This record gives sequence, structure tokens and C-alpha cells, in this order.
Amino acid sequence: MNGAESLVKTLLACGVDTCFANPGTSEMHFVAALDRIPGMRCVLGLFEGVVTGAADGYARMAGKPAATLLHCGPGLANGLANLHNARRAQTPVVNIIGDQATYHRPFDAPLTADTEGWARPVSVWTRTATHAASVGADAAVAVQAARAEPGGVASLILPSDVCWDDGGKVAAPLPALAVPKVSPDAVQNAARILRSGQPTLIVLAGSALREGALADAHRIAATTDARLITPMSNARVTRGRGRLAVDRIPYSGDAARQKLAGIRNVILVGAPPPVTFFAYPGKSPRPYPEDANIHVLARAEEDLGEALARLADELGARSAALPQSAPRSAAPAKGAITSEAVAQSLTALLPEQAVVVEESVSFGRAFYPGTVHAAPHDWLQLTGGAIGAGLPLATGAAIAAPDRRVVALQADGSGMYTLQSLWTMAREKLDVTIVLLANRKYAILLGELAGVGANPGKTAMDMLDLGNPDLDWVKMANGMGVEAARADTMDAFNDLFQMANQRKGPFLIELVI
Amino acid sequence: MNGAESLVKTLLACGVDTCFANPGTSEMHFVAALDRIPGMRCVLGLFEGVVTGAADGYARMAGKPAATLLHCGPGLANGLANLHNARRAQTPVVNIIGDQATYHRPFDAPLTADTEGWARPVSVWTRTATHAASVGADAAVAVQAARAEPGGVASLILPSDVCWDDGGKVAAPLPALAVPKVSPDAVQNAARILRSGQPTLIVLAGSALREGALADAHRIAATTDARLITPMSNARVTRGRGRLAVDRIPYSGDAARQKLAGIRNVILVGAPPPVTFFAYPGKSPRPYPEDANIHVLARAEEDLGEALARLADELGARSAALPQSAPRSAAPAKGAITSEAVAQSLTALLPEQAVVVEESVSFGRAFYPGTVHAAPHDWLQLTGGAIGAGLPLATGAAIAAPDRRVVALQADGSGMYTLQSLWTMAREKLDVTIVLLANRKYAILLGELAGVGANPGKTAMDMLDLGNPDLDWVKMANGMGVEAARADTMDAFNDLFQMANQRKGPFLIELVI
Repeated sequence: MNGAESLVKTLLACGVDTCFANPGTSEMHFVAALDRIPGMRCVLGLFEGVVTGAADGYARMAGKPAATLLHCGPGLANGLANLHNARRAQTPVVNIIGDQATYHRPFDAPLTADTEGWARPVSVWTRTATHAASVGADAAVAVQAARAEPGGVASLILPSDVCWDDGGKVAAPLPALAVPKVSPDAVQNAARILRSGQPTLIVLAGSALREGALADAHRIAATTDARLITPMSNARVTRGRGRLAVDRIPYSGDAARQKLAGIRNVILVGAPPPVTFFAYPGKSPRPYPEDANIHVLARAEEDLGEALARLADELGARSAALPQSAPRSAAPAKGAITSEAVAQSLTALLPEQAVVVEESVSFGRAFYPGTVHAAPHDWLQLTGGAIGAGLPLATGAAIAAPDRRVVALQADGSGMYTLQSLWTMAREKLDVTIVLLANRKYAILLGELAGVGANPGKTAMDMLDLGNPDLDWVKMANGMGVEAARADTMDAFNDLFQMANQRKGPFLIELVI
Repeated sequence: MNGAESLVKTLLACGVDTCFANPGTSEMHFVAALDRIPGMRCVLGLFEGVVTGAADGYARMAGKPAATLLHCGPGLANGLANLHNARRAQTPVVNIIGDQATYHRPFDAPLTADTEGWARPVSVWTRTATHAASVGADAAVAVQAARAEPGGVASLILPSDVCWDDGGKVAAPLPALAVPKVSPDAVQNAARILRSGQPTLIVLAGSALREGALADAHRIAATTDARLITPMSNARVTRGRGRLAVDRIPYSGDAARQKLAGIRNVILVGAPPPVTFFAYPGKSPRPYPEDANIHVLARAEEDLGEALARLADELGARSAALPQSAPRSAAPAKGAITSEAVAQSLTALLPEQAVVVEESVSFGRAFYPGTVHAAPHDWLQLTGGAIGAGLPLATGAAIAAPDRRVVALQADGSGMYTLQSLWTMAREKLDVTIVLLANRKYAILLGELAGVGANPGKTAMDMLDLGNPDLDWVKMANGMGVEAARADTMDAFNDLFQMANQRKGPFLIELVI
């Protein structure tokens, strides 16, 4: 057995059975091993940003890592932005990064690059395999590292001779690393704060945004008048009709400061202390009052559900009914195409158990608050601010959840980063409805430029306007094998959205906004 | 004057007047400064790989650096693969990489990443600006570093507060760094080797591939029977009818070893010692005989033209006429679409002083040798093996050389990496003819897989085949505003190629091969 075969068999033994791939020459022995050994589903992406973003979307829905297959340093580099997003989402991913043979690397052939150096900043674990006999064991550690709570990117760099050399040994799966116990002191401290009656904010993130944990958080809030909130961007939120609707910290620092005014205590449940996305002259980086105290109930690597349950019990909180509120409208919206109208139509028409992938940037401001009464669904977001995550996330989520409709709410500027995803959706016949929001500009940046006090002149518009020429998403999607149509009215959108969700395979709606 | 304004004015003072950009929020003060201060041509790319590859292509033709404008660590990461290629091409590039405000970075906001760590492996110079008062001086050093022979990537990281703070100071251009003198010992050593009569190879790279240096190399070879050769991939070669045709070291290690068999001495002129692109089991990484001696006439940072002129004089070499050979055929090819047929048609139809950008991978094997009798032209290649360089290089070359036709010979698999380039070509109305070679597979990898001794099964084909669905490049190009047509015969290709070269603006020919 060569190293490549031992690697494939170890990954399969560790439960990794899906590989998002864009291979190159140095990985041919690994490709041959994948071909010989049954059990790994290999999904090709025509650009590495598709591959890494799809691995992120897959694991968010599957709850276990996929492998990626990337080619040398530059292939990894093409996937780094979405690995950055995966890192911020705390998603388990196992990168397999092919590279020059161990003895070839010193010759500095053209493709040689600092593969380890590029991988390390996005990875919780990075290792270059050195021998066929140990690459199986390396892979088992990689899977263990990726799965350690809360999840992270593990990067195994795979020199070609490690693949082709004989002497590979299949490694057994390693046990899950122990989850740190919830601290009784932290629970009692949080209970004390909550009993004090001071205005208190509980920031929920990560696995605290799943159904059971949210129910416990609701118990706590109902008993204590604490306010629940989540970060602006989250890997996955379980929400919709019959589920707790939790507000988010606004993206705008001014809006966030306004929302959090008067807060005296912030209790963190798997979340970092809130910070604005960017700095602005003369404004605080912190959206909460300067004199507020920060408390940690549980860090991301702890069992957040258990922490919330214990806190609820400590407070003697009884289970609380959700606020009953009927959908604001059961009918899809008519009239002008606005963010609120699209949210209303989504509320009316979103399929049960849809997986919503949102990278809607500026136009989507009403989507999240406006869809709390939509059919039960999961909501996946861009977590690290590196645009170009949406279409890859949708691709991976659809592979992981083949019985659920994926709805991608995608801005045009960010969609262009990784539009190659459409081809993979067509090839794999994934049930994805893409709502492509075509405003034909970097609208968020025009807003930021206005904030700088500048009226955009020709040079600025040369950099912020996506018209001239207009992108035609219907043609681009068709060119990659995805059927598509344009909607210029809400009526047309409503019809296309219903039709798209009922068919097999992907469909793109270019919504001209 | 704020820091951003001092930066723009310093760049302009240093002769950097073109900026390939994909800006983000943290760069808005820089964008506003570009807007207020006339003189910088800003060209938007819809993905950072377009931006960095265009900066590479621009500088290869302009002989001076462009700036890039990239957004934070992930924006840089998206551009790294083409910066890797620029590094291998020794192209001067000045990266301006926006980032979090200096005081915001410790808060680890979502977009915060290891910007410096990612930049350093591709850069000859990396610095994070710290104050508005010094960012002008930083920029002057960056331009000096990028232009130091043979040229390299300089990365200036620009925290947002450095932009918006007052107190910016425009810096004067710095003098070019001194070029190391050609070593008389190295010249005499090379002359001694060449006089010995032993089979000797002279490897020419970098600026040794321009017209004057090539003439001197030809004098040397004609006097001494030395063989001239270039690396497989070069940043820019001046060639075509009436110019010296120099052979390349083949990509295949076996073919290279065969070509270099019997060589006793290798004299390097700006080139590294030859090495195969990848390692293969049991094969030497060096394509030249093990007992050959390596000599350095001049390193890349020296004046290669002067070194060759001195060596020619030392040898008393008289100017030598080029081998006279008529074009093999003045007529474009008919019949089957083959690599040789396309080369013949290019020979017949290539416009005078065209800039050929080649990323034709497997199908293009006959293009370079088959076009030595085409009209005089420059030939630009993928230098670092990170695919996705071709369309961006063509974009930048067309900006730098607006009076010349750019002809991009582009494989489909690599073209998909940075297809967003087409939109920039349309927007800027660039005179680019794209010959898109649609074989609908990663043909080079199928060859490599066969070399591994494997017949591809379903899993391997899932990763190596680009059909299912076929990419429709005409639709994709149209979707980005580029006119396009498909050619299924050489006749159709010949007609479209002539028509495309005579029109203004870009045109894509999908050549189904």
C-alpha cells in the first residue's frame, strides 16, 4: 500500500467521505488512490475558492468535516479567503494540500511556494507529511484536530513522494478531544449578574444558535429580562416559524451603539467580545458602553448548550412559551422591488426546512429580520467578511443536505468572486435556487465613500460601479449549464422563485434591483 | 494633506500612474484621494486574481510597475497566486493592501487576518505603514524596491487610520538601486569554458531575452558552437520573423534530459539552474547530465545585456547573421484543428507587433516552436505554474500597450480561474483577441494520471473532466460584455481571428479542440 492509499483509507475510516477537489500534477497518486478505493465522493470545483467554501458549507450542515484537495501553495492561496471565512465560522475542514516531493522542494521549481506559511494563519493545525508510513497517522490527527470543539481548519501538506512511496499504514480514528467542562463559577457568576437586575446582554454564538440551546436561552431571558443577541454574522442559525427569533448586533457601528446603549453587563456564550467590523475616525471599536462589564459564561470550545441549560437551572427558569405572532403576511409581495418586499416573499414562499445561504451585503438588510416567520429553516452567513463565500457555501450545503432546498441570496459583486460554483451546481445537479441581487455596483462601498464625505467622481466610480457593461447573469449561468431567468418585478420573482424551488437541480433568478 | 493623499501623490511622483484595483471599506479614504488627485488611471477587476495578474502583464510591457489596490488579508490572498507568478517573472509590482486601523487590529474583528504573513513569501519588500507622516516615504521605498533589478513585488500594507490621519508628506522618488557590476572573472570564466570546445549550453532568461541581448547571445553562439536555450516559461521574449529563435527546455523531464544529453557545461545568464517542474519516482530533478558543470555568467540582478556584450567581445565574436529561413507557409492552415494547424494560422495571421499571452497548457505544445516565423511580436507566459494568469496578463498588457494587438492563447481549465478578466477587457475596451482552447478537460492531468499507470475510472474523471456540462464560453463572454463566437473548423477560426484582430475592443473565439 502506498502513502496515498493509506491516506484515503484513513480519511474514510475517520468518517470523511466527501472530498471537494481541484487537483494538480503533484496529487496524481492521490487521485489514483481515490479512484481505486471506493467510498469517497469527489466533487470538482473549477477554482479553489469554490472548493474551500463548499467544504465550509458542507460541514456547517453535515456536522462533520469534508476533505479538500488543493494543488501546492498557489492552489491553497486561491482557497485562503474562504478558509478565512471557515476559520471565523469555526467549521471543521480537513485540507489535503499537494506539494513538491520532499527532496524536490530545495530545488525551488517554479511552483514551489511557502505552502505551510500560507496555511498556518487559517488553520488550527498544520503539518507537512514526511513519510508514507506516517501519513495515515497524520490524517487521523488532522481529522481529530478539525473536529475538536468548536471546529477548525486542519491543513495536511502532502509531498508527492509521500503519496507514491510504499509502506503506507492505515490509521485508526482518534477519539474526540475532551471538551472543557462548563465552569460552575462561570455559571454562578452569570446567574448573579442576571439576578442583579442590571441591564444585561447575552451574546449567543456558534452551537448556542441551535434549537435546544436557543430554548434554554429563551428560558433565561424570560426569567431575568436579559436581552439575547447574536453577532452580525453566524455560521448557522436555526430559525423560522415556531422558533426563537434572536436579534443581531447591527453591522453599522452607530446602529450597534444605539441598540446596545444602557447595557451594563455583557455575558458571552461562545462569542468574542463584540467589536465593530471596521474602525472609523473618532468612533469606539466597541459597540457596547465603555463602562459595561464583560463576563464569559462559556468559551467557544465548551459545550454551549450545557452551559445555557445549567444557567437556566441555576436560575430556576421554567420553560417559556415563544411569543405567539402570526406571520405578518402570508402573501408574497407585489409592487416595487425592495429589500422588505423580497423578505416578505421569502416569508410566504420559502420551502420547509430550506437552507438559506446569505451573502446579500447591502440590499439584504431586511432579509434576516423580515423572515422570522418563514417556514423553519437554517440560515448560513458569510462569517469572515471575505466576500465570495455565498455560492460555494450553497454548493457544499446542498451536497450535505440533499433532501433540503438551498436558497442562496447572493449579491452580484460578491457573486462574481466565485461564480465558477454555478458549474459545480449544474454538474452535481444540486437543488439550489440562486436569487442573484443585481444592483450593478459595490453599493456598500458607495455608502462607505459617502461616509468619508466624498461625492464619487469618475475615478471613484471607475472602481465602485459594476455597470458599463452590465453583467448578464442569465447568460453567465447558462454558460455554466445552469438554467436562469431575469425578474424585473416582484410578480415575476414570486413566480420564478416558486417554480425554481419545485424543480430538481439549480436555477438562478437574476433579480434586477 | 492626509496620509492617503500623500500616498497617491508620492506614487505619481515615482512614475506609478496606473492602479489595478478591487477596493474595500478600509481603503475608502485612499479611493477618495485617488478621486480628488488627478493622474492615476484606475482599472477595476472583479476579483483580486485579475488585479494582480493585470499588474504583472502591465509591467512586463510597460517596463515599470503599476500599483494594485487590494482589500485586507483575504483580498490579498485572492491575488496571491498571480503574485506568485509575478515573483517568478521578476515583475515589478507595488501592492497597496488596505487593512484594519492600527488600533483596531488587536480587537480581531472578523476580517482581520495575517496580511503581512501572507504577503511576505511573494514579496521582495513588505512593510506595514504606521503613520500618515511616513506613508509617503514608505511608498517611495516600495517603488524603489519593486524596480530594483531584476524587479519584484513590493507590498505596502495600509491601515485605514494611516490614510485618514492628517500630516501626510509627499516623498520624492528615490534613485534606482545600483545594479551589481558584471564580474570580469565571470566573463573570463565563461569565455574559457566556451573556448574549451566542450558541449556547452547557455541558458538565457529575464532581460537576456530582449532583442539586443539576444543578438549578442547569437554572436557568442555563432563563434563558439555553444547552444542557446531558455527556460520553459519566460516573462517576455522578443521574437518572430527577423529575430533570433531560441529553443526552450521542454516541460517534460524526459524530453528535457534527452535534449540536454551530452552537455558538459551550463552557463547561466539570469537563469536559475534548470530543474524539472515536478519530481517523478526514480527520475532526477535535474534535466542536465549529472557530471555537467554549472557556471554563472550573470545573476538576474545584474545587467544581462552588458554581460553578454562583454562576453561576446572577450571572445572576439563578430556580429552574426540570423539563419535565413522563409516562413514555412504564408497561408493559414486548413483541415483538422491541431496544435500545429493553429500555430500555422498564427504564423500567417498574427498582427505585426502583437503581444502574445500564452497559457495554452497541453494543447499549445506546437504554438511556440511553430510561430518563430510569425510577424515580430512579444511572447508572455505563465511563469510560476499557478494557472489563471493568462487572461489577467492579457488585460494588463493591453492597458500598457494600447497600440498593439494582444492575442491571448488560453486553455479552458485555467481560463476559468480568472474569467472575470473578460469584464475588465470589455469595460476598458481593450484590443484583445482571446483564442479560448476548449478541450473540456484537464488534459495535462489526464496525461499525468496515465503516467502514474492509472486508467481513469469514474472518480478520477469526476475530477479531471470539464464536460458534463460543457462550458459555453460564448455565453460566458457575452454575459460579461465581450463579443464572442465559436469555431469548429480551421477555416472558421482563420476568418474569426482576422476579423477579431481588426476590430476595436475584445473578442473571444471559442476554438473547440
